[in-house]
Amino acid sequence: MNDEPFHPPQRILMGPGPCDVDPRVYRALSAPVLGHLDPQYLTLLDRIAERLRRIFAAPDHALTGALPGTGSAGMEACMSNLIEPGDRVVIGVAGYFGERLVEMATRAEARVVRVDAPWGEPVAAEALAAAIDDETRLVALVHGETSTGVLQPMEDVADVMRGKSALLVLDTVTSLGTTEVHLARWGVDAAYSCTQKGLGCVAGLSPVSFGPRAVERIRSRKTPPRSWYLDMNLLQRYWGTERVYHHTSSSTLSYALNEALRIVEEEGIAARAERHRRNARALVAGLEAMGLEMVVDEKFRLPAISVVRIPQGVDDVALRRMLLEKYDLEIGGGLGIFKGNAWRIGLMGHSSHPNNITLCLAALEAGLAQSGFAVRPGAVRVALESLDGPLPFASRPISSG
Amino acid sequence: MNDEPFHPPQRILMGPGPCDVDPRVYRALSAPVLGHLDPQYLTLLDRIAERLRRIFAAPDHALTGALPGTGSAGMEACMSNLIEPGDRVVIGVAGYFGERLVEMATRAEARVVRVDAPWGEPVAAEALAAAIDDETRLVALVHGETSTGVLQPMEDVADVMRGKSALLVLDTVTSLGTTEVHLARWGVDAAYSCTQKGLGCVAGLSPVSFGPRAVERIRSRKTPPRSWYLDMNLLQRYWGTERVYHHTSSSTLSYALNEALRIVEEEGIAARAERHRRNARALVAGLEAMGLEMVVDEKFRLPAISVVRIPQGVDDVALRRMLLEKYDLEIGGGLGIFKGNAWRIGLMGHSSHPNNITLCLAALEAGLAQSGFAVRPGAVRVALESLDGPLPFASRPISSG
Repeated sequence: MNDEPFHPPQRILMGPGPCDVDPRVYRALSAPVLGHLDPQYLTLLDRIAERLRRIFAAPDHALTGALPGTGSAGMEACMSNLIEPGDRVVIGVAGYFGERLVEMATRAEARVVRVDAPWGEPVAAEALAAAIDDETRLVALVHGETSTGVLQPMEDVADVMRGKSALLVLDTVTSLGTTEVHLARWGVDAAYSCTQKGLGCVAGLSPVSFGPRAVERIRSRKTPPRSWYLDMNLLQRYWGTERVYHHTSSSTLSYALNEALRIVEEEGIAARAERHRRNARALVAGLEAMGLEMVVDEKFRLPAISVVRIPQGVDDVALRRMLLEKYDLEIGGGLGIFKGNAWRIGLMGHSSHPNNITLCLAALEAGLAQSGFAVRPGAVRVALESLDGPLPFASRPISSG
Repeated sequence: MNDEPFHPPQRILMGPGPCDVDPRVYRALSAPVLGHLDPQYLTLLDRIAERLRRIFAAPDHALTGALPGTGSAGMEACMSNLIEPGDRVVIGVAGYFGERLVEMATRAEARVVRVDAPWGEPVAAEALAAAIDDETRLVALVHGETSTGVLQPMEDVADVMRGKSALLVLDTVTSLGTTEVHLARWGVDAAYSCTQKGLGCVAGLSPVSFGPRAVERIRSRKTPPRSWYLDMNLLQRYWGTERVYHHTSSSTLSYALNEALRIVEEEGIAARAERHRRNARALVAGLEAMGLEMVVDEKFRLPAISVVRIPQGVDDVALRRMLLEKYDLEIGGGLGIFKGNAWRIGLMGHSSHPNNITLCLAALEAGLAQSGFAVRPGAVRVALESLDGPLPFASRPISSG
């Protein structure tokens, strides 16, 4: 029996999430616990909901808040509350999380119609349009596909959905807080995200946002969803004015999320998205300068996660272990068909900083050289020069609170 | 827009949970985040599982860990993984959480057979025995009914279940860490709990423990459970040796839970249970000395939560608001049919301390007198004298780590 205290090493987190966390968020975690029905706590929940509506750009999404679970709980809440058995559901699938949507919709007894695209590409809006018929009750897709590093262009999807009775559900797990998200403008009826990526918080909550059509769909269900824990009709009675007990909301996680959202709003969504883009461009410039190849075409790259091919002959697991053990640096392995073939390098939230780019490129350069790959020199300099554009150096915001 | 930082007041938490938290647990929360597949983090998950097996007294429960949700997520995991559509399920119902079990089993498409008992009493083992037939697949009941303050005697239930093919599921949300729990001895096949009560941690995780028969039942399901998020076959692949990604486990909450479990083991389960019993007895002695009446007969009282009738003419909500605003003291209102008729006063985990008894009795005495209730004097002295028994004064353990 090991009864020593656990002291985790301090990693640099450049995988697909979790990411590094601002010290302000760590401090918020240790504020004294409040009961889930304490009037002061309920005002905090309202503040978090307001902030999330602004960050989701969904001012009329009354049913917005953070579910007591990770991003997958948000996905399940959307699928299990918005689908009734037999519903025709169209799902865009171009990666691991598109597949997960299919899995959850199937468990909710949907008749699932897949619209596939190759991994590494977005789903074509025309293909979605062709799959949606008058019977279609719901369309779901992933905005930032964490497994492939693709950012789904949404304006075309919005055009396709305009005037349709089908609801649109969007996975913003990796896009929220790392790039612009405009739920209202795109006609998104329901979206979910996580806390430990672009929002810069620790893991444990799942922001969700349901617009008027989604709320009406949930209200008028013929049967309750199978999940009691994620039943939005019950959660609405706790989040709304009734304040009926449902679960013991974790004040600790809410303090952390509120502080993380304050940091997002202090920086500003536009500036934050620009920081993520510039840092991602610099990282990619460095990776390419080294002789590595990106998986995704430049115009569809997700700023949050850069997916790069593992050169032939390089041992994926051994190299990532070396980065972790020698440099305390975590990068992500490939998921699904990319397992063993690609790395996923995240620059999200507090982790999206030039110093992390420098560290990652330098460590990769050393590791690849040891693996026998003919690394071209100078990657770090190329990356840092790419940051010296007309805009200010893309650093983290200076904490003001 | 309110963009001030949120600084919660420091409450004394004597409701049904969350409870006060040891400063060691608060400190653990701010350790640096680790990735959910970091080898160091995986050793922490294993340590937590070992500790939980000891605290549940379930050495052969291979599938043990903390689910990413609150106690209700644990309840849902048990109901949705162990029930298949059409299963005959016998549920003991003597309070709000027994009703919740019925609700969740119904959503999992069970044929539910209720065994009711009046609120404030345990479920009769003979009544359970009479309801269980050869077709019964599962029996579920609540060990510590948070809504009524009743501790279900388990030895009789264990006798009834012996030799039966039906699985036994036990809700230990309010009993774990506040009284003895013996899953193996009682033949419990699956149990769930929460972190923010007897274990003395913050809210956000749900310890669960599945024994060999439950694991086999889950493995051999004909259909997957409706919930992907709480699918134990998938979680087992992450918790076990395969380490397949399922969700982004919150390292922050795991640090806190591990530290809280260390504190539980340092004190020792028997000593901790004894502390809870002695402090509860002292509180009750004080409440009765004041002229108040307990809802539950002495022999069935749950040490974690003392349920006391609200005297006629006293305004429940106004009095609790006064306790909160004037003394920063939270006690719980009644749930279900006890709403407005009873208070639930918790002494759990770090909150189970003589000083809290003193504060609560003094504050209640003042509040009740103002409400016109003829309070008998001397309650605090009676309570403190009750603690001066042959055993040492029932304080919290002194932190050693």
